[in-house]
Amino acid sequence: MIKVLVIGAGAIGAFYGSLLAKAGAEVSVVCRSDYDQVKQHGFIIDSPPLGRWNFIPAQVLKNAEDFEGAVDYILLCTKVIPTLDRVALIRPAVAENTAIVFIQNGVEIEQEMLDAFPGNEIISGLAFICCNRLDPGEILHLAYGRLALGNLPNGVSSKTIQLCELFNQSGIDCKPSEDIVTGRWQKCVWNAPFNPLSVLSGGLLTLDILKNQESFVRSIMQEVCSIAAASGHPLPDDIVTINIESTYAMPPYKTSMLLDYENGQPMETEAILGNTVRAAQRLGIAAPHLESVYALMKLRELKLGYLP
Amino acid sequence: MIKVLVIGAGAIGAFYGSLLAKAGAEVSVVCRSDYDQVKQHGFIIDSPPLGRWNFIPAQVLKNAEDFEGAVDYILLCTKVIPTLDRVALIRPAVAENTAIVFIQNGVEIEQEMLDAFPGNEIISGLAFICCNRLDPGEILHLAYGRLALGNLPNGVSSKTIQLCELFNQSGIDCKPSEDIVTGRWQKCVWNAPFNPLSVLSGGLLTLDILKNQESFVRSIMQEVCSIAAASGHPLPDDIVTINIESTYAMPPYKTSMLLDYENGQPMETEAILGNTVRAAQRLGIAAPHLESVYALMKLRELKLGYLP
Repeated sequence: MIKVLVIGAGAIGAFYGSLLAKAGAEVSVVCRSDYDQVKQHGFIIDSPPLGRWNFIPAQVLKNAEDFEGAVDYILLCTKVIPTLDRVALIRPAVAENTAIVFIQNGVEIEQEMLDAFPGNEIISGLAFICCNRLDPGEILHLAYGRLALGNLPNGVSSKTIQLCELFNQSGIDCKPSEDIVTGRWQKCVWNAPFNPLSVLSGGLLTLDILKNQESFVRSIMQEVCSIAAASGHPLPDDIVTINIESTYAMPPYKTSMLLDYENGQPMETEAILGNTVRAAQRLGIAAPHLESVYALMKLRELKLGYLP
Repeated sequence: MIKVLVIGAGAIGAFYGSLLAKAGAEVSVVCRSDYDQVKQHGFIIDSPPLGRWNFIPAQVLKNAEDFEGAVDYILLCTKVIPTLDRVALIRPAVAENTAIVFIQNGVEIEQEMLDAFPGNEIISGLAFICCNRLDPGEILHLAYGRLALGNLPNGVSSKTIQLCELFNQSGIDCKPSEDIVTGRWQKCVWNAPFNPLSVLSGGLLTLDILKNQESFVRSIMQEVCSIAAASGHPLPDDIVTINIESTYAMPPYKTSMLLDYENGQPMETEAILGNTVRAAQRLGIAAPHLESVYALMKLRELKLGYLP
């Protein structure tokens, strides 16, 4: 039986973990904030597309070091924020044959994992999903859900194929990606404008941002493309236009960064913007619009009491 | 006796109007929001540098068309915002020999005055002052107060000299400027970063902005310098450094735009940023940092319910 440990069982972690359990894996979770509720009752997953079910993890833990046994996969699903040490969080549960999968936002978040676990297979994952935690242990899957998984630095291993198959069996579209780092830059094309603009505008939805400042949004997207290309991950020529058109077509959307902002939670400013701007500086690419948005997010965070 | 009509007798208008009255001019005011209070009791001006006094205007009016007689000077001191028609506001009181003086923020706000009143002398004024309206009819002059006045398109007339002398008699430093348009760009070097950054950060004071994002502030200032130069108003080479150093030296300061924002009042986004960005576009100067800040201010205003 395939053993999985989900670390960071918020909305994303609990949802994808529950799908693997549905597909027959033995899934345990490390879950801090909702520990008591989940330990007693598991998770309720409410997914209009897939149904409503109760996910009872094999083990419910407060820390990865409490896990007993060895897992085939660690599924790391926390936010990527400077105050959270991703390596330290998973290290106690990494065994010889454990594949480390991270389903997380941001660019250039691979290297610390490769450096820390040179002997393990590392799989990078991208989730295209809209899914919220309603109450302790209660997850609402609103829409989408597609996953892309690929090995680092590139390619697709048999373990990645196996994981994709489990997800597909559970009803979610999960595709192996031969070049997942490029996929990560591709996702950043959308995230880099819409996430910070929703916060800095004071709470606008995607459609209002786009309708009023399309050319600004395009400038930011174009800079992400230039940085991606310079870092060896060129994106399709029409990627900006496709992102613009699909955002016009989708319902007005509240970004994850705006949700964090409104809930007083740390935002993924560094993973999405900081790493992008640093890549631009390292590679000598001009990115003045991204720099401006990043600087303003840092000022906003300073005002919120984040340390500089 | 020199006759003056102050239009827009908020903090700035009431303060400078009261100084002219002190120096012996006959000063009337158009003042809408505090009309009843001012009609009955005039203004109380509380100025730690200059004392505390009661300013009783010759006439207190709700509209310029109620003014009887002809004035030597109109002193226009409203904010510069798109919903306020500066020309229409003053037109009823403009007589043949009236000099139109505007003490207002922003760049490229001259042309509509020149176009509307080709037969009148037009004097552009810049105030370096910190001064607030506390209660109806009550003005607190906190610090500074220096004025610069110059004719449009340039030069200094005898009427400008006369007005400078009146201000100097009243205890305020007022210098004639041969090139006031350049002075306006010079002031914009400071306003263009600090005003919007204080708002978009959610309320930071000048020193916090500067200490944490000095290079971003410098980039914006440098773009203003390039636009000013391209428009025929080159600024001194060390202007950015001087602005940075003087802002480090001054007490942490809440910008006028932040005060407006916090009080739910319209902000001078167009006069300070919009006109600057439009000048850059017209002149073919790259100004991506200014463009970003302007776009974000427009999104912020949209969220506040301003029309796009």
